[in-house]
Amino acid sequence: MNYFSTVNDAHLEAFRALLGEAFVLTDPDNLAHYAHDETEDLHFLPSVVLKPNTTEQVSRIMEWCTQYHLPVTPRGGGTGLSGGALPQYGGVLLSMERFNRIIHIDERNLQVTTEPGVITEVLQNAVKEKGLFYPPDPSSRGTCFIGGNIAENSGGPKAVKYGVVKDYVLNLELVLPSGEVIWTGASVLKNATGYNLTQLIVGSEGTLGIVTKIVLRLIPLPKHDLLMLVPFRSAENACAAVSAIFRAGYTPSAMEFMERDALEWAVKYVDNTSVPISADVQAHLLIEVDGNYPELLMQEMEGIAGIVTEFDCGEILFADDSVQKDSLWKLRRRVAEAVKSNSVYKEEDTVVPRAALPVLLKGVKEIGRRYGFHSVCYGHAGDGNLHVNIIKGNLTEAQWNGSLTQGITEIFELVKSLGGTISGEHGIGLVQKPYMHILFPEVSLHLMRQIKKVFDPTGILNPGKIFD
Amino acid sequence: MNYFSTVNDAHLEAFRALLGEAFVLTDPDNLAHYAHDETEDLHFLPSVVLKPNTTEQVSRIMEWCTQYHLPVTPRGGGTGLSGGALPQYGGVLLSMERFNRIIHIDERNLQVTTEPGVITEVLQNAVKEKGLFYPPDPSSRGTCFIGGNIAENSGGPKAVKYGVVKDYVLNLELVLPSGEVIWTGASVLKNATGYNLTQLIVGSEGTLGIVTKIVLRLIPLPKHDLLMLVPFRSAENACAAVSAIFRAGYTPSAMEFMERDALEWAVKYVDNTSVPISADVQAHLLIEVDGNYPELLMQEMEGIAGIVTEFDCGEILFADDSVQKDSLWKLRRRVAEAVKSNSVYKEEDTVVPRAALPVLLKGVKEIGRRYGFHSVCYGHAGDGNLHVNIIKGNLTEAQWNGSLTQGITEIFELVKSLGGTISGEHGIGLVQKPYMHILFPEVSLHLMRQIKKVFDPTGILNPGKIFD
Repeated sequence: MNYFSTVNDAHLEAFRALLGEAFVLTDPDNLAHYAHDETEDLHFLPSVVLKPNTTEQVSRIMEWCTQYHLPVTPRGGGTGLSGGALPQYGGVLLSMERFNRIIHIDERNLQVTTEPGVITEVLQNAVKEKGLFYPPDPSSRGTCFIGGNIAENSGGPKAVKYGVVKDYVLNLELVLPSGEVIWTGASVLKNATGYNLTQLIVGSEGTLGIVTKIVLRLIPLPKHDLLMLVPFRSAENACAAVSAIFRAGYTPSAMEFMERDALEWAVKYVDNTSVPISADVQAHLLIEVDGNYPELLMQEMEGIAGIVTEFDCGEILFADDSVQKDSLWKLRRRVAEAVKSNSVYKEEDTVVPRAALPVLLKGVKEIGRRYGFHSVCYGHAGDGNLHVNIIKGNLTEAQWNGSLTQGITEIFELVKSLGGTISGEHGIGLVQKPYMHILFPEVSLHLMRQIKKVFDPTGILNPGKIFD
Repeated sequence: MNYFSTVNDAHLEAFRALLGEAFVLTDPDNLAHYAHDETEDLHFLPSVVLKPNTTEQVSRIMEWCTQYHLPVTPRGGGTGLSGGALPQYGGVLLSMERFNRIIHIDERNLQVTTEPGVITEVLQNAVKEKGLFYPPDPSSRGTCFIGGNIAENSGGPKAVKYGVVKDYVLNLELVLPSGEVIWTGASVLKNATGYNLTQLIVGSEGTLGIVTKIVLRLIPLPKHDLLMLVPFRSAENACAAVSAIFRAGYTPSAMEFMERDALEWAVKYVDNTSVPISADVQAHLLIEVDGNYPELLMQEMEGIAGIVTEFDCGEILFADDSVQKDSLWKLRRRVAEAVKSNSVYKEEDTVVPRAALPVLLKGVKEIGRRYGFHSVCYGHAGDGNLHVNIIKGNLTEAQWNGSLTQGITEIFELVKSLGGTISGEHGIGLVQKPYMHILFPEVSLHLMRQIKKVFDPTGILNPGKIFD
């Protein structure tokens, strides 16, 4: 446990001198805004919100906070689902929102250099205009920041074909808690030059340093895609179809699973009744293929349709045009909000080898029956990444904060026994921290804590996250 | 600097009791064999060679060596090019050659679990029989070990399309210097669960722990490929063509550059006169495309041929059949041996953003002229990875070990100024260590040294590598 100093007037004066009045916020409304993200119903008030916009300013802030032992919690777009950006110990909330410049799109080397506060979709659109593609694509892409994506090693639907954030990050400018600034690597596709500090920072949830510049690799933009929605009478069959499709040699560019509730709630939430859901349907797969040759994509869709038919599916909906495609994707992207609008929930971000998905789903439901909770499951089935949304519904506070913990523990133990892990793309943050020991023995956690100390010897940076 | 204990009779007795007489080698011939790898003409004698074949044995060895402060140098296939497997301080040479089992090819999840002492090509062929593909493919694939590939984050010709070793490693069983055994991650495609220890181990050159099991992801095997050899009248033009091909939206599965000398020496070395090289040719590109649709590959080859023609190329040789393809690939793979048979040389493993290749090549030649050395350059041009072989030829010992160091420093400074790094796939090991400060400021090197201490507090594991 850390005991931090309190932000006082002298600190505020120093911050105002550095950043200007407008970028040092202490009024209650602003503090309240930065007290939460998209994680459940958690709130932690910071003492002050700082909004630097240069590496030099971040460096000075970190140096100051190390010297005076003030906790610093970095924050991107505030869309996190594990509480990683919540200032659990108060202190300084470091908002990266003014780091919002795309510095250079390098068309010759298929790279982009950007600041971390750029909205993911803005970055994607900017490179798309040059015929380039940055695939990692969280559902929150319209509001999340690329820096936050790096902190959490985000994935999204395209990961199944194109990989996750870690597969695109080449180099990072990083401000250490001491205030020192380094580049973690080089802007090249191959690197065998010392320890991979870049990959150590990706997914470290803002606990090792503040990322102030990012070099990403890009790929050529695929010219065409096709999309279909496949209903199944059994959710386990839908999961089983996923691995059959890959075994047949297909690599869809998206392979999304939604339980009946997920899609139905999303349809209601976005007020879009264009998707009829038959009474006997228990789950859907949303399957996309992409590439440069429409005739081949059509062949692939037909091949995939042939496979899903063997898993007792209903009538397949082929999205005919970009309007219908957008409409289906909108439904998929808004499932999380729809679930949230329905009830308080806890979202578990389980991931297993994809062939184990049916076993995981069956196990989650069985555990739910024993502990008396309803869950709505959906996610990136092609990656074996299943978001298990546990609905509060009529559970008592005692159940919600008590026995449910044991139920979640059982889910995670199942995940581990299947060769999986407890977070695929949301991170550990605050809310999954109590479960880390299920995955890692003490010796591994000790290694991680010691690595944290190497970067942040005084423990001021994003304290209380990942592990104590 | 470390001061280690000396291996004595009591240590040898303990090792024999653990492994059996046959796997504890102390005779001069064996020690001499393990005193070198493929790095220049370096030799360091170990005191003893140990050949364990279980994780438990490795754990006991590490525990013992930590207790008695004996240096341990792990070794794979002995094909390294930076001296990473050389026992600079003597002591224990830990050969992983008996860890040679492929444990499980998981066709449902497209993964393979293997021991580290499996020869890379053996692993590739085993998964190929199941229609699967493990792309990373060093030239030494017929003798190098998959464990060594992980230590060095190897690449090879396919990296340009398929990525390097780090892009395929999902999970590692690791014996720490303390003897404790951990798994670094999980066998899944997405992971946001604490710090990425897996990626920290990949490329760490055996300095953080001993890898005893490896889980790799696999991809479907492309069914077809086409190959062509393109001669250019200017080496810089050949390099310029590389980036033009990618800019046009093509992603070849290999894009290899060879200066005239490289190909000519290889042709002589493998006694294969089937490739005529015109007098005015200065360099070649060996270009491969792969995929599942032969007609599309043919279209791509024609498109690429159209582009190279704009860079003043000679007559393109299309490999018509698998015999001719194998013959061309054999030439490419044996360039390093051919150069070695010609003269003592130092191989620098430079890498830059690919569009900077022509500038790098021109700079290397210019530096060579100033310092009086001849270089033969070849490598994975699609990745911007240029192997610069500096030929000893008639250089005096004083030049070779003296002023040449300054020449290499200038090459690496050029590389850095172009956004590149000093090793793409060979690692730092022993021979590139003096140049690390060109790439990294002291604060970064300090971070790396501290991470080393987290894993190996007494400094017994592969001492003297990467940094002092």
